[in-house]
Amino acid sequence: MRPIKVAILGFGTVGSGVYELIETKQDLLEQLLGGPVRVDAVLVKDVGKSRTIHDDVLVTDDFSEILRLPELDVVIEAIVNVEPGYTYLRRAIEAGLYVVTANKELFANKGFELRQLAEKRGVKVCFEATVAGGVPIIGALKQLLRFNQVVKVEAILNGTMNYILTKMREDQVSLEEALLQAQRLGYAEADPANDVEGFDVLFKVVILLELLTGRKIDWDLVRCSGISDITPADISQASVRGERIKHVGSLVVDDQGQVEAEVRPVSVGESHKLYAIEGVDNAIVVTGDLTGDLVFQGPGAGKYPTASIMIEDLVSIFQSIKKAAVSR
Amino acid sequence: MRPIKVAILGFGTVGSGVYELIETKQDLLEQLLGGPVRVDAVLVKDVGKSRTIHDDVLVTDDFSEILRLPELDVVIEAIVNVEPGYTYLRRAIEAGLYVVTANKELFANKGFELRQLAEKRGVKVCFEATVAGGVPIIGALKQLLRFNQVVKVEAILNGTMNYILTKMREDQVSLEEALLQAQRLGYAEADPANDVEGFDVLFKVVILLELLTGRKIDWDLVRCSGISDITPADISQASVRGERIKHVGSLVVDDQGQVEAEVRPVSVGESHKLYAIEGVDNAIVVTGDLTGDLVFQGPGAGKYPTASIMIEDLVSIFQSIKKAAVSR
Repeated sequence: MRPIKVAILGFGTVGSGVYELIETKQDLLEQLLGGPVRVDAVLVKDVGKSRTIHDDVLVTDDFSEILRLPELDVVIEAIVNVEPGYTYLRRAIEAGLYVVTANKELFANKGFELRQLAEKRGVKVCFEATVAGGVPIIGALKQLLRFNQVVKVEAILNGTMNYILTKMREDQVSLEEALLQAQRLGYAEADPANDVEGFDVLFKVVILLELLTGRKIDWDLVRCSGISDITPADISQASVRGERIKHVGSLVVDDQGQVEAEVRPVSVGESHKLYAIEGVDNAIVVTGDLTGDLVFQGPGAGKYPTASIMIEDLVSIFQSIKKAAVSR
Repeated sequence: MRPIKVAILGFGTVGSGVYELIETKQDLLEQLLGGPVRVDAVLVKDVGKSRTIHDDVLVTDDFSEILRLPELDVVIEAIVNVEPGYTYLRRAIEAGLYVVTANKELFANKGFELRQLAEKRGVKVCFEATVAGGVPIIGALKQLLRFNQVVKVEAILNGTMNYILTKMREDQVSLEEALLQAQRLGYAEADPANDVEGFDVLFKVVILLELLTGRKIDWDLVRCSGISDITPADISQASVRGERIKHVGSLVVDDQGQVEAEVRPVSVGESHKLYAIEGVDNAIVVTGDLTGDLVFQGPGAGKYPTASIMIEDLVSIFQSIKKAAVSR
């Protein structure tokens, strides 16, 4: 089999993790896919910066150069913001390439359009890494729970906020101090607004809603608030009641497919499935009409969890192509 | 498309649940599979007993009659013990039928042989319901975490025992009294030995080991003990240390594929992912080499959770057949 040829867009934590794993896990990939996987190109902002990338890999800041590569199969995108990612991925799909993305802001805004375009073009867009990092929640909903109607989802989808709320309670410190600790440990960005104001969770809730309903979701439907108003007093009052404050994204889908969704801090008691989720973990409680409450928990971010789940997407694409070819 | 034709073996809680769901969810099944699903036969022990089954469904105690049905596609097995299930499923596979089973004792003993036979015959054996009832852990391991090497699993796999241990702690009662309550609520069998002595968990650990290693597993490898020796004093001593006693099946797989496995009560602290799993829930902590600790939690038994997950298996079989046919 000829190699599967990959371009990686973005070489930050996740992008470089994908590169590293493809380099170091060739044996496993060959075993899973029947042939090697080769990184042919990496798209970066600054080509001058020094990076540990093999000499025969094209390192460029020009996406058109990547599209001109012969026999490229798949684009793995791990950059931030809606643009330039959306333009890149649209062009990739139009050129008949498969796409794997971790970009939640892009996918919340333009995922519906990208999936429609991919269907027309006969390729796939995989987005497991956009929600809950290393937790395979998209696959569970798409592949494992099709006969169940998902009637409710309640989830902790931002590890930074969950870490801050856990720290505030455990160490009885202010939000500012807990945030500083999170930044020191690399859990929070220098500009934490996307996390702390709840937008990051909003993106993920929109992605889940579009997956569950098959429709383009109007964001105005989703009330969104973050944790910036939460005080140590709120936390200790909750503790007195035996409760913990968690930042929760929730959605309900009724019989007619109508949705209600909300992103906000919630005080939960010990019997709530999200009570015990601490630190940087994410957790998703999925209520199926038949199977009841299922909880999926794990690291919501991080280099290898996120990169590995993107390669799981890559594997699923090419295993299903292989299967189809075998049955031909 | 001609209907997908099903025979259900066993009409207890789970078997009758499968029948009911196929009857009541035809629209959804047609939408998922492109055609109807029809139950053509039900195998029971006592044909004289009154049941709510349509007149045009063959109700028989003779498996050979089922094998003679024209155009049967799949056998859904929900009986207990290794025999007669093993003989039935072997004959079904030899006749080219697909198989979906919930029978963990059978699958722990003979699953390896059945999967080998199925591979030779070009059919599939699905066994999602054998481990952790409604929690799609087999699918997660097989479909979603292929690029991760699972290095460790720790799990609560018996809802009856977890209910008993939870009750003993919360109500400060003896094991006998907690067991009586479990029986009154229908969580425990009249003969609870399989649960309380740990054999039920042993079955599930063996099934997971065979899935993860691809080898037939020697049961002597797995040290197994139940909870019959646990006293209220053990429980309260654990509480004093801030711990809870949980019955845990655990397994470790090393680089060379060597395994170590164990089934026994363990005292776990609050930071342990199994500490918060209470009542009849099951939970599986899967440690991937890349993705870290993932937790899958949900109902380990019950009519609709288990029946629905068996139909998820059915859907996955016939969706993959349909896909292969389309790409031809």
